[in-house]
Amino acid sequence: MAKPKLRIIPIGGSGEIGKNMTLFEYDNRAIVIDAGIMFPANDMHGVDYIIPDFQFLTQRKDLHILGIFFTHGHEDHIGAVNHFVDAFPKVPIYATRLTAGLIEIKLRNNSVHQDVDIKIFKPNDKIVLQPFTIEPFHVCHSIPDCVGFGITTPHGLIVHTGDYKFDNTPVYGAPPDYAKLAEFGQRGVRLLMADSTNADRAGWTPSESTIEPAFDRVFANAKGRILVATFASLISRIQLTAKMAQKYNRRLVISGHTMKEYVKLAREIGYIDIPEDVLLDPAKMSSFEPHKLVLMVTGSQGEPSAVLSKLATGKHRSMEVQRGDTIVLSSHPIPGNEEMVYRTINKLFERGANVIYDSLERVHVSGHACQEEMRLMIGLTRPEYIMPVHGELRHLIQHGKLAMESGVQPTNVIIGENGTVLEVDKYGIQKTERIPGGYIFVDGSSVGDIGKIVIRDREILARDGFLLVAVNVNRQGQPVSEPEIVSRGFVYLRDSDDLLTTIKNTVIETLRSNRNANGKRREILEDSLSRVLYNETKRRPMVFSIINEI
Amino acid sequence: MAKPKLRIIPIGGSGEIGKNMTLFEYDNRAIVIDAGIMFPANDMHGVDYIIPDFQFLTQRKDLHILGIFFTHGHEDHIGAVNHFVDAFPKVPIYATRLTAGLIEIKLRNNSVHQDVDIKIFKPNDKIVLQPFTIEPFHVCHSIPDCVGFGITTPHGLIVHTGDYKFDNTPVYGAPPDYAKLAEFGQRGVRLLMADSTNADRAGWTPSESTIEPAFDRVFANAKGRILVATFASLISRIQLTAKMAQKYNRRLVISGHTMKEYVKLAREIGYIDIPEDVLLDPAKMSSFEPHKLVLMVTGSQGEPSAVLSKLATGKHRSMEVQRGDTIVLSSHPIPGNEEMVYRTINKLFERGANVIYDSLERVHVSGHACQEEMRLMIGLTRPEYIMPVHGELRHLIQHGKLAMESGVQPTNVIIGENGTVLEVDKYGIQKTERIPGGYIFVDGSSVGDIGKIVIRDREILARDGFLLVAVNVNRQGQPVSEPEIVSRGFVYLRDSDDLLTTIKNTVIETLRSNRNANGKRREILEDSLSRVLYNETKRRPMVFSIINEI
Repeated sequence: MAKPKLRIIPIGGSGEIGKNMTLFEYDNRAIVIDAGIMFPANDMHGVDYIIPDFQFLTQRKDLHILGIFFTHGHEDHIGAVNHFVDAFPKVPIYATRLTAGLIEIKLRNNSVHQDVDIKIFKPNDKIVLQPFTIEPFHVCHSIPDCVGFGITTPHGLIVHTGDYKFDNTPVYGAPPDYAKLAEFGQRGVRLLMADSTNADRAGWTPSESTIEPAFDRVFANAKGRILVATFASLISRIQLTAKMAQKYNRRLVISGHTMKEYVKLAREIGYIDIPEDVLLDPAKMSSFEPHKLVLMVTGSQGEPSAVLSKLATGKHRSMEVQRGDTIVLSSHPIPGNEEMVYRTINKLFERGANVIYDSLERVHVSGHACQEEMRLMIGLTRPEYIMPVHGELRHLIQHGKLAMESGVQPTNVIIGENGTVLEVDKYGIQKTERIPGGYIFVDGSSVGDIGKIVIRDREILARDGFLLVAVNVNRQGQPVSEPEIVSRGFVYLRDSDDLLTTIKNTVIETLRSNRNANGKRREILEDSLSRVLYNETKRRPMVFSIINEI
Repeated sequence: MAKPKLRIIPIGGSGEIGKNMTLFEYDNRAIVIDAGIMFPANDMHGVDYIIPDFQFLTQRKDLHILGIFFTHGHEDHIGAVNHFVDAFPKVPIYATRLTAGLIEIKLRNNSVHQDVDIKIFKPNDKIVLQPFTIEPFHVCHSIPDCVGFGITTPHGLIVHTGDYKFDNTPVYGAPPDYAKLAEFGQRGVRLLMADSTNADRAGWTPSESTIEPAFDRVFANAKGRILVATFASLISRIQLTAKMAQKYNRRLVISGHTMKEYVKLAREIGYIDIPEDVLLDPAKMSSFEPHKLVLMVTGSQGEPSAVLSKLATGKHRSMEVQRGDTIVLSSHPIPGNEEMVYRTINKLFERGANVIYDSLERVHVSGHACQEEMRLMIGLTRPEYIMPVHGELRHLIQHGKLAMESGVQPTNVIIGENGTVLEVDKYGIQKTERIPGGYIFVDGSSVGDIGKIVIRDREILARDGFLLVAVNVNRQGQPVSEPEIVSRGFVYLRDSDDLLTTIKNTVIETLRSNRNANGKRREILEDSLSRVLYNETKRRPMVFSIINEI
């Protein structure tokens, strides 16, 4: 009898493919890689974040999930772990030390208190969960303790890179494990699943350590306080800032709850080296002169609730921007955030700070491989098949082109979508069905009850607002009171007497001339109001009516 | 008696300063430069565009506006001309030939039919409108017929660059007029007002002609149709495409109403050279094989109503993307548009096109000067004062730093805001008052009736929607009917039976226990509903109630 097929399914987040969660399944036994969240696009109004739609997994009672493996501790890879644990409380979690610590924080912050089995592994461990053998290997990225996985399956060795760059001079930890990748290559890689984030950028991503000279210049020139804004998880950037603080005899203040938690964890497990006498409690800042201080803050993406935005808008509880502050945005705007980031920068300038961002100085580098590194990854692993992952379609296609140029057969380049099922057997790899589902919006306390209809309604409300009229009619359908009007986001009604009169007249006239319309009355009234409002304003608010027969 | 002061006022558009309109006023006589529009930020929901707030001008009955001068024909410089003409029908318009043509189109499309006095000037003309002498000079930018102005006033020579780059090998028209700028410098420039758009970019903006090799590669390699997307006004890009069409023996189809209008005008006045036998009527496309066609389309910023977006979403009336199409986005996303642009690119890939955009090939260059060019501008004109304009605050500050490095006195670098009044006299230039007003939203047919309140309401509606309850009560304030509920953008109520029950119970209980609250009843009911909804969903929809006493 033929062996069963191996099934691989990237499970959807949003625009990026195979980013947040991936399933490997063989003969009803499975492992999962990552459980991350995505942040909503600007037109997904009111959505807090998006989680992968793994509902089909909860319905597969036949399936035995042997473990969930995490590549690294960024939100887009661990952010949905609490949702996963809710659904699969018994599945053991496998992670490196820092990642495990961040997962514990995430679970604690989300009030997941049940006993979760977290198993810590190291690169080069070998974890056997039949029929899978999982070999984590060290990669460089913008957070320590990142791995990719070599997964030996009954249908060959799959290499999943996770997020990576080839950083030969990383600020923390070892350089890339070229030997391991080459060894995989010699064993024979059936399928390479590789990070495509920067597939449209030529060359090689600069090393994390190339930003040190820019930081040094900033510290050498700053006369007042220095504020460095970056991601809470960018441990190496915090390390670099601490190093500079020491060199320039400043005290380092960590601001913001998340960043404090991250630094605490990283110090506990020895992943960051900040001497006790460099760190300073925010409460004690006032006893130090400005040029003796450096603050690490969050909010480099312009997030309204983070420290930097609050400083920019003057809404921080205990701190404010001072004339003479130097503020470094050690980050690059994620597409969609540009407007908020630049607005924050302008506001900080307005408050008298000198703001340094990545187009002015190299105060940030990407954590992802560029084209030459992708070619190197392919050259080391020499895969039979490649499935570009971690990127929008445009990135996957570009990565696929690079692979073909590097000798992968064009028919063996697999451009998938989230939900696409790959079937692997001895004959090859095929894209087959697409599982239903997509992604799940989280908004407030609810998971998944905000669907396309609510989002579309929010879009319409955002554009033109709404108008509702309520009117009492008698048994004959004749209005017996002045219509009451409720409207927001349409026009400022208090200044629109003429329009108000027109609306009221329309209500009364429409009801008078449709007294026998009965069940259709409401619809007729709303249609005629919509028409009148469009004629008067060229806008299309949502229109509602309540006809109250008394 | 001392001479009156010269007053200079940049009049607001939005985030950029001194971009859309500037007033020069002396002794109740004034000239205006430009009347452009700005496009709304992503959180200015439903706003079509923004015009400068020149209301204070209409109130200045004492002021004699001698003329309005246009630097070039882009929307952010001419887009509000119809609004200006509405307010000041008698003020003569001064523009170069192409700009004048584009203004005529704009007025015609906005049904401005009165006789408007448009006077066409050429670079190096000298226009005397006492006490001002205006000397337009040729600059390079991304549309032909661009000028800056030397304005001789009773308090010295002001040089306003308009949008510019120093392009030594432009695709259309003359290289920059260095001699004129140097001559101004020798005469003595009191104040330089200069374009700051790229002030945070090092180096020198590549020449428009540097994109020809990339276009040539695209044309040499494309096997099917080629579509080139760019701004309708980017005449030189259309010229380049036409040249390539000729070279590679393809017929050129211009698609989209605006682009057709622009090409027609540019051909009429001889600013673009496309032989008749290269142009092809869109209706005749079907008789040509794909590799014999190249189409110019609009929509390179992801604008939903433009040709490219419609092709990407399959909503174009008569065309669709074909497998094998090569689509060139000859543009760079304007900040805030990235998400829409990349979404469009992904969708075009999804439909089987090969999409080439500026991170893959140099198919676009900026039309604005970078830092070295700014230094050169300062070096040529050697101004006593500089006011960086055309940019966000971060750009102005950077430009100001460059000026100081180039020898302008730090106290003579003026960082203004829209509405800031500069007063110039023989002693110097001072920032004085700030005129009230800001910018005016245009939404549908209304100009300016959408203010901050409506936009803020749209923001709240976009995030969490609204919920309205209407209930009939008797004379004793007791509910006598089931409350009626209208809600959109909050939750999908049809799937939320429990929540509906909770809402109805809250209405009934709140009214029962507040029967004597009279005037406060509505407020109490809305507060208690808001509280319940937040507890149940962690969301804050707008809540309204209608209590109908019957």
